[in-house]
Order: sequence, then structure tokens, then C-alpha cells
Amino acid sequence: MTEPDVQGLQRRLAEFAASRAWQPYHTPKNLAAALSVEAAELLEIFQWMTPDEAERVMDDPEAAHRVADEVADVLAYLLQFCRVLGIDPLQALSAKIDRNERRFPVGRPPGRAARPDRHSAE
Amino acid sequence: MTEPDVQGLQRRLAEFAASRAWQPYHTPKNLAAALSVEAAELLEIFQWMTPDEAERVMDDPEAAHRVADEVADVLAYLLQFCRVLGIDPLQALSAKIDRNERRFPVGRPPGRAARPDRHSAE
Amino acid sequence: MTEPDVQGLQRRLAEFAASRAWQPYHTPKNLAAALSVEAAELLEIFQWMTPDEAERVMDDPEAAHRVADEVADVLAYLLQFCRVLGIDPLQALSAKIDRNERRFPVGRPPGRAARPDRHSAE
Amino acid sequence: MTEPDVQGLQRRLAEFAASRAWQPYHTPKNLAAALSVEAAELLEIFQWMTPDEAERVMDDPEAAHRVADEVADVLAYLLQFCRVLGIDPLQALSAKIDRNERRFPVGRPPGRAARPDRHSAE
Repeated sequence: MTEPDVQGLQRRLAEFAASRAWQPYHTPKNLAAALSVEAAELLEIFQWMTPDEAERVMDDPEAAHRVADEVADVLAYLLQFCRVLGIDPLQALSAKIDRNERRFPVGRPPGRAARPDRHSAE
Repeated sequence: MTEPDVQGLQRRLAEFAASRAWQPYHTPKNLAAALSVEAAELLEIFQWMTPDEAERVMDDPEAAHRVADEVADVLAYLLQFCRVLGIDPLQALSAKIDRNERRFPVGRPPGRAARPDRHSAE
Repeated sequence: MTEPDVQGLQRRLAEFAASRAWQPYHTPKNLAAALSVEAAELLEIFQWMTPDEAERVMDDPEAAHRVADEVADVLAYLLQFCRVLGIDPLQALSAKIDRNERRFPVGRPPGRAARPDRHSAE
Repeated sequence: MTEPDVQGLQRRLAEFAASRAWQPYHTPKNLAAALSVEAAELLEIFQWMTPDEAERVMDDPEAAHRVADEVADVLAYLLQFCRVLGIDPLQALSAKIDRNERRFPVGRPPGRAARPDRHSAE
């Protein structure tokens, strides 16, 4: 078995949608909404857990399956969204890490501003 | 320049967080929340657009940059979430497509049930 | 039957949670996550609809029930969140409308900046 | 000053939108997306906080203002969504609590099923 890669998965997802005539639904706006809905479904698994319980979520086979399944849904819509709009998600992330390494130099004094909540606001 | 791959990006993200002492914040529950927040920020770009405007979003360089930037944020938190919990996101998606191909055979008659909103509910 | 009001509903929700010993789960962070998850479930109903189909959603009794049910869930978590943190949601909104009336004077020329996507960013 | 009520707020929001010609944007689907985006912005405030920090969020005046402001945004879109579709949100919640009181009788033995994550799934 070969390791799946991003382009191969995008191709399989596109064929899957095409053979079921689902492409008319797969507009950028709808896919962005669906991505957001699936990310919320992943969060739902954790919403009432303590931080400790969340750390151990993969110890329960049923919960582990649910988590992996929601990860797959999030990734599926992200890859379909990117394909529809011609975005290379790995390049986009690589470029973003480059920018963040310049914006958040190592060694800044700790404090509220150093929290990760700042690292995606641009 | 070599093409970025998922594992390489996960390594860079882990080093980025480690060198800034951000790992204590990167619990599974917090990362799931952050993923959901970033997916909503991507949706925000489209929320008042007509379907037609959304199709053309990449024609405007400023909007195109914003979209790619939010895609990067979503992918960053998804990959960090997966690394923390030991999930292979590409394998998870590949396995999900396998399951969906069995669950949604090609050729079922059209109708409400054939809409894509059914394909992630398991 | 008397018309339900916000405080009465908050009291019923608090009693409901207390008599089932659910308050330990109802932390501000968990309630904010749950609110966000329920809002996504409301959006899920609309995610593959065209704008026209969405306008007619209440014509289908089953869909109408689902929409009202998700509205109730969103409001339930919003009211519980507010009660836990001592926020008056109606006063908060009234004050926000006051601020927005000053920030967005009537009569500004139309254009991208006049879109509603600006009216919540402060 | 009179206490604001839900109908009065809905009227003010409708006049606000009408006088700025924003109603064409305020379709049910767009308002559901906007509601979900605002709920995520509320969650964003808490995403990196420990449960303890989240409990004390209102002690910091700046954070307290941000929280109240996002609560106002969530409520604004919820009320506009309900007005557009003819839903009475307080009645919807009252009816839901009635149903939940029957579905989750007090005194069921504790355990996973008694967690609040079950109380909105219908």
C-alpha cells in the first residue's frame, strides 16, 4: 500500500463528488461553511471534557474512531475547498510559517502577548 | 526548493511552538477550539458574498491572500492537533473515503438523501 | 400561558442543570464551546442550500422544527453563559446597537465598507 | 430607562439594517453563517485559557468588554435570523426545555449518558 498524499486525496474526493453529481453543491462558500461545521463537530467531542480527559481521548477506541473520523471530514472539506479555488494548502502553510518566524522571533519575554492566540492574527 | 510535506510541516510547527514555550497551551481541547475558530474566520470572508462573488474571490489579490492565510491557519491547527494525538490525517481521510465509497454507491437515484450533507454523518 | 422571558428561562435552565448535577460542566469556556457547536449545527441545516431554498426553509415542517430546535440550543447556551458570567445579554445588545448607530451613520455612500461585515468588528 | 426586550431589540436591528440597505445581505443562510462566526469569536477569547482563567475573565475590564461585545453580536444575529424566518426564540427555548424535562428525568443514575452533551441531541 502506498502512503496517501494530498494531491491523490484531492483527486479521489473530486472523483467521488463528480460521480455522484455533487459538484454543484461544492461552491467555495458552501465548502467553507461545511469545513466550519465539521471543525465544530470535532470540538463537540471535547466540549464537556476536562483538559485531562481530553489528553486521554485516544485511549477509548470508540472516541478515537470518532476523532479520526471528524479529522477526516475537516481535511476532506479543506482539500476540496482548496482544489475549487486553486490553493496549494501545503505551500500556503509553509509560507505562513515563514512569515510567523519573522513576526514572532524566539526569545521575546514571556507574557500575555507571547500566547499563541496572537500567532494567527495578521 | 523542495515541496513541503505534511510531516515536515508538523515538525516545523512543533519546533515553532517549542522554541516559544507554547506547548502547554497546545492541548487537544484547545487545539480543537482553535481549529474551529480559524475555520470560522475562513467562513467570515464569504459570509455576505453571493455564490457568484464567492466563486471569484481569488481574482482580488487582497482577498486571495486572506483566504490562503486562513487556509494555512486551519491546516496548522489540524496538523498540530493530529500530532498531539498521534493521528495520521492523510490515512484518516483515505480510510474515510474508502468507507464512503461503500456507503454511497454511485447510481443511487437523485433526491434529498443524495445531497452531500449526508456523506459525513456516520 | 404567560410569555416566557429571558430571566425566567435562565432560571429554568439553571434549575434543570442543577437538578441533574451538570453545573460542574457548565464552565464559561465549555459553554462558549457548546454555543459555538450549536451555532454550527444551525448552519449545517443551510450549508448545501441555495439562497432561495434557505428562504423557504420554514415551509417544510420537519426542517422548520429542526431550525427552531437549533435556535433553542443556541439561545440556551448563550443564556447559561451569560448567567455564569453575570452578563445581561439584552443590555449588552442594546449598548452595542447604541455604539453602532454612532459608528455607522446613515447615509454613507455605498460600497464594500458599507457591507454588514464591518458592523461587528470593533 | 426602560429595560430592553427582545421584540424592541429586533425592531431596532431591523431599522438599523433597513436604513443602511443591508437587508439584501441578511438572508437566512448568511445570518446563520454570521451567527456561527460570532460564536467562534466569543470562543476565541477563551481558547488558550485554563478553566480557572476562564472563570475569572470578567475581572479584567478589557476582556469583560470584549466578552459582552461578542455576546451582543451573537444575540444580534440570532434575533435577526429569527425575525427573518418568523421564529419566536423565547418560545422555541421554552418548548425545548419542556421537551428536555421529559427526556432527561431527574434521578437517572450518573454516568456518561448523564453528561450535558446529550441534552441537545434530539
